[in-house]
Formats: sequence, structure tokens, C-alpha cells
Amino acid sequence: MVDIERLYSDRAGKMRKSVIRELLKVTQDPEIISFAGGLPNPNSFPIDDLEGVVDSVMKNYGKTALQYGTTQGLKDLRDIIAERAYKDGIDVQPDDVIITSGSQQSLDTVGKVFLNPGDTAIVGLPTYLGGINAFRSYESNLTGIPLDKDGMMVDVLEDTINKLMKDEILPKFIYVVPTFQNPAGVILSESRRKKLIDIANDYDLVVVEDDPYGKLRYDVPHIKPIKAFDDIGRVIYISTFSKILSPGFRLAWNISSPEISRKMIICKQALDLCTNTFTQFIALEFMRQGSMDLHIMKICEMYKPKRDIMMKAMQKYFPEGYVCYKPKGGMFAWPTLPEGIDTELLFLDAIKQKVAYVHGKAFFVDGGGARCMRLNFSYSTDEQLEEGMKRLGNVIKEKLEKNKVVL
Amino acid sequence: MVDIERLYSDRAGKMRKSVIRELLKVTQDPEIISFAGGLPNPNSFPIDDLEGVVDSVMKNYGKTALQYGTTQGLKDLRDIIAERAYKDGIDVQPDDVIITSGSQQSLDTVGKVFLNPGDTAIVGLPTYLGGINAFRSYESNLTGIPLDKDGMMVDVLEDTINKLMKDEILPKFIYVVPTFQNPAGVILSESRRKKLIDIANDYDLVVVEDDPYGKLRYDVPHIKPIKAFDDIGRVIYISTFSKILSPGFRLAWNISSPEISRKMIICKQALDLCTNTFTQFIALEFMRQGSMDLHIMKICEMYKPKRDIMMKAMQKYFPEGYVCYKPKGGMFAWPTLPEGIDTELLFLDAIKQKVAYVHGKAFFVDGGGARCMRLNFSYSTDEQLEEGMKRLGNVIKEKLEKNKVVL
Repeated sequence: MVDIERLYSDRAGKMRKSVIRELLKVTQDPEIISFAGGLPNPNSFPIDDLEGVVDSVMKNYGKTALQYGTTQGLKDLRDIIAERAYKDGIDVQPDDVIITSGSQQSLDTVGKVFLNPGDTAIVGLPTYLGGINAFRSYESNLTGIPLDKDGMMVDVLEDTINKLMKDEILPKFIYVVPTFQNPAGVILSESRRKKLIDIANDYDLVVVEDDPYGKLRYDVPHIKPIKAFDDIGRVIYISTFSKILSPGFRLAWNISSPEISRKMIICKQALDLCTNTFTQFIALEFMRQGSMDLHIMKICEMYKPKRDIMMKAMQKYFPEGYVCYKPKGGMFAWPTLPEGIDTELLFLDAIKQKVAYVHGKAFFVDGGGARCMRLNFSYSTDEQLEEGMKRLGNVIKEKLEKNKVVL
Repeated sequence: MVDIERLYSDRAGKMRKSVIRELLKVTQDPEIISFAGGLPNPNSFPIDDLEGVVDSVMKNYGKTALQYGTTQGLKDLRDIIAERAYKDGIDVQPDDVIITSGSQQSLDTVGKVFLNPGDTAIVGLPTYLGGINAFRSYESNLTGIPLDKDGMMVDVLEDTINKLMKDEILPKFIYVVPTFQNPAGVILSESRRKKLIDIANDYDLVVVEDDPYGKLRYDVPHIKPIKAFDDIGRVIYISTFSKILSPGFRLAWNISSPEISRKMIICKQALDLCTNTFTQFIALEFMRQGSMDLHIMKICEMYKPKRDIMMKAMQKYFPEGYVCYKPKGGMFAWPTLPEGIDTELLFLDAIKQKVAYVHGKAFFVDGGGARCMRLNFSYSTDEQLEEGMKRLGNVIKEKLEKNKVVL
């Protein structure tokens, strides 16, 4: 036997499995209605359009599309991404864009480029689990800032940075998912976006803005990303094709200052040399055909009623005393349940009743979130949404009843 | 301005650009005949076959192929890879296989899982640059073991480990590219493979076997991988579709023990969640159709004469006194030039004469290799091979003439 533990790095010793990806295994049972994944609806994939696109890529660009590409990504694709970012309020050059293998790779790169063991980064309470995993894999400390219905509470943010600085801790960056946050579904208000940039300017910090859901808007007008308020080049903006085209393509991008992007490209060279060239060409052709905006509109038309079904079913089946802001975009609802519920413990009851979710604690770096659960509304059919929420409501009610009896 | 240097991690401060990927930029000039890249020949891509395959993937598996997959990779693809590995002499279960985003990701994962800052890993002199970059990005020390025409000199390996242990340094792993090595083109002999495993057993070390070229065999029978001699599960075997199907697909795999693969999967969760599902399905379908072995045969039939053209041109145009073993497979020739040549300095002369290569020092972790150059023979046309070698021979001869004049 190899005495392998002896050979592992310190960071490997601390690595933990992703709660969600482990949950996804449990929920393979086809009878389980799962609100656990963060999966787009497979019916949203533009398979018919893509057949033609793929065919044209193979015929017209085969030899290039099957070859290695540059680490930074296809120039034409970066051009289109820069153009589209400009329309969203971000003024960038194509050279500031890096195509990555999913936005998870951007998060890993941020961790690798900025975090020494023991360094501190700031995240939301709650925040995206993939961010937590990426940053923790570099042995960092994560300090959490609570969210309310307008996103990260920037006053608390400033107080917290002040406290850290008094202890001679300089946080490296502020990680934020400002638009239709995963998991909480809330939007960081414009005034808070400006305030957040002011704080970053005052303390000379990097801001990591993760924006996978910005285009999945149901009830609100376009919201400018934080990056649009950044005059200095301190925001690393991250977005992805996973939620608006296909997660299977593993295509995402980040936008940052020339200096930061130079460092991130060097880092990416050692990570995977380059991102999948073939699917880069497919995404490029899809956008060149002008199909993207129409397709996004179709996805929103598919997801908005699903959101409504879930929210109505919640009102109908959940017990009194829960709180859930109506998500105005994205893929998740985030109810906080009445006192006495621990959603991690409740999970086994739920699985017995053939319904699944992700428990709230998975998204909290401070041990909080025991009364919360993340519910995905994009993946399930309308019928599954109704039936699954009914099952879930019953599980919660039963638990509350039991609590009463015990009391 | 952001004071960004202050925020970078220690490892980011030490990251250096890949010499090769920087060189590739210089050699974009279409008049330059480049032997610098490690690129497959685009004419080797089975574009016609793939058109049908891609069409069938889109039609039959569209919804799954465009969705997120498991971190470990598509089960059916891992089954076929395990079957094929078995034929090559490796006895594995599909659960020991992980599909990665290029084999560079396996190298990065090995670095992340095993290397603390200051740790030592053992590599060849010379060795693959991507390995050096991946391991150095975790702030490791790399100790080199010289190669001769039979690959890594395993006696020196044992002496070196002994010396390290005397200094209380336990190396974490031995990284080796045993078959048609990049860059040296040589094969680690079977007796040395066995001896290497014996050494790893004696000192209880991990062996990282990188095998991208094993199937590109021109003059020799099948050579068992080191992993085939590993009874204990200490070898991490890495291979790739990049050289036998398409590098643009970013598809590779590693095979290790259940314990190591568990750790590597957790690590990969934080790196990119999963590898491109779409191209995994394409590779799977391509192999299911039985096209792979025939295709590999075609590639070998294309590359073998290219190797011969390069070797003959070397004899014809290079000055006396160079040494170059004839590579029996793979994509590279590796001449050592006469005294007085520094291939790093010579590069500018070569570029002026419109021919490019990678200088030897890039592959040496100890500063050696100044008289070596890596020449890729797979990418160029037959005419380019002849003309490029003529140009290169002239550049070398001129330099030697100048040296004489100075003396």
C-alpha cells in the first residue's frame, strides 16, 4: 500500500467534496423531484439551431476548430463578447477578455492568483458554493457579509473591512454575485453597487463580480454590472455561456484590467493550455447568426412562468411564517423557514418523500443558514414544480407538527 | 491605479509565461516555417468522419450532451477508456478513470494535490515544459535526472533520491514521459520501467506517467506503460485525445488508484466542475463506431514519412558533430548541436531566416540544454520540412563559421 496521506499537500488534506455535486448523485433516482441542481432546463437548449451551426463550423473552420487555440481564447469570440459587454455598460477591449473552461475556472484562477494560505477574502452570507470551494482550495479564510433583499449589506462590509484592518488583515478581494444571486435570488441595488466600488477604491481592493444570471431577467429592466462603475480596473467581471446556451460546452469568460488579465493568462497556461476551441467556434457562429438575443428571450419566457409556479406553490403548500423574496431573475428561490427547522436534518425526510433541495448551510461560511433552502425552478417541468413543492410543504409541516408535540 | 502587486499571491509573483506559447505568437508570420509548436497536423483531423458523429450526438444525445456532466466524466467514455487501457496492459476499473480538460489539467491537479511550497518533485532532464509550468505554479522545487537514449537514467534516479533523503527531503513524485518523450523523443526501456517501479516501491513514492504519444508508434512494437508494472496503485497514468483525435476538444484522462482518484475528483470540482460534455460524447461516438484504431493507423502513416524527411534533411543540411537519436514515435526530434552553439541566442538568427524551433533550455530545470533544440515534424508539410531544415542547417553552419572567425 502507498502511504498516500503522507504525500498529499496541506491544501489537499483540507479539500472537501462539493455538497451540491454529492447531492446530485443522491438525486439520480428518477422518482425524486429535484430542486437541488443548478441545471438549466434541457428544453432550453437550442438543439435545432445548433445542428446547423455545428455543421457549418465543421465545414468552414474544421481544421482550426479542432486544433489548439491561444490560451486567451478565440479573438473573434472575444470581439463579440467585448461588444456585448459594452452594450451592458462595460467599456472593454477584446484584449481584456479571457475565455475560460466554465466560470468555475475563473474562480479557481482568482484563487490561485490572489490567495496565499491564511489570506482573507470577503464573500456574501450566503454565497455561491463554487466560489467557496475554489477559494478554500487555496487555504484562504472567508469572511462573510450578510445579505438582505437588496443584496450584500455594504455598510456591514465597510465595518468588517475596518475591523479586519485593525487586526492587520488586508482582505484580498470582495467576491459578489450581485444580480439574481445564487442562492438568495436578490439583486444588489444600484446605490449599493456604487457604494461597493467606493469602498473598494478607499481600501484599494479587487472586486470579483460573478454574473452568470444577469441575462435571465423576468420583471426588471437591465441592471448595470458593478464593472460598469469601475473606472480604475479593479473589478474582475465573470460571466458564462452555461445558462444562456449550454453548460456542456464549458465556455465562460472574464473581463479585467490588462495587468490582471496578463497574470490570469499565465495562470491559465498551466491549468489547461486553452479552452475547448471547437465549442468556442460554435458559440461564435451562434452569435454571428444573430441567434443569441432571441434565444435568451425564449429562455426567459420559459423560466418566468416556472418561477411563478414555484412561488405560488410555496404560498399554497408551505406553512405560515416562512419568508421568501420573489426572485426577479435567475434560477433560484431561497425560502427561510420558521424557527425549529434545520434544513440539513430535514433533507433525509425530504428524500424519503422523493423531493430534494440544497440545505442553506452549504452557502454560509459562518455556520449560518440552517433555516434556509435553495430551490431551483429552471430545471423541473411545470407538473414537477407543483408536485415537488407540495411534497416539500408537507415535509416541512410534518416537521413543525412534530416539533410542537415535542414541545 | 490599483496597487495590484501587493495583492497577488506568492505563487502568482513567481509565475512565468510559457516559453512555447510565447514563441507560438512570434511564429504567427505565415512565411516562417515553424518546428516550434507541438501541434498535430490539421490534415490528420478526421473531419469527414466527425461530421457524421457530431450530427448523431446532437440528434441522439443533444439534451444530455449540452448539459452539465459529472466531475469524473461520462461513464460510457470511462468504460471504453478502461477497456482500451486493459489492452495496453493496464488493469483498471472505469471508476479509476477521470476525464480531464486536456492532460494539462491532470498535471495541474497533480501539483495541487501533492505539492506544498518548497516540496520537491523529480523530473527528466529534459522534460515536458507543461509539466514544469504546472508543478512550479505550486512553488515546488524540481530536481532533474538526466536522460540517455533509453530514457531517464534510473541509476542516477536512485542516487539522487538517496541524496535528497540524506538532506531530509522526501520527493513527492517522479514525473516521467516514458514513451516517445517530449522533447527528447526517446523510449524508457522496459528494464528501466521495472527498475523505476522498484525504486518507487522502495521509497514509497508516487509515479506520474505522462503518455500523450504512446499510440504514435512508427518502428517499434507496443510498449507496456509503467502503469502496467504497478501492483500497488502508485502510478498516476495520464493520456489524451489531443494527439489521436483533436486537441481542440480538450479531452484527456488519468488513471490512478481509487484513493488518489477520489482526491483528484474533489480537486477537479473546484477547478472546472466538469469537462466539456459535448466533446466527451463526440469522442465516445467516434470510438463506438470503431473508428479510433483505423484513425490512429492513418496518423502514423502520415507522421512516419515526415519524421523520415526531417531526419534525412538533418543529415543533409546540419553540420557535422550534431547528435540526434531517431525518434521511433511521437512528434519531436531533438538534436544536440556542436560546441559553441546556444540555441536560445541562435533563435533570433533563425527567425530572421524564417524558421523556428524551441530552444533546449526551456526543457531543463537545471539550466542545461543550451546546445539542444526541439523540432516538431508532425505539423509541417513535406516541402516545409525540407525547406525549413535547410534554412535551419544554414543558420547553424553560419554560426559555427562565425565562431571560428572569432577564435
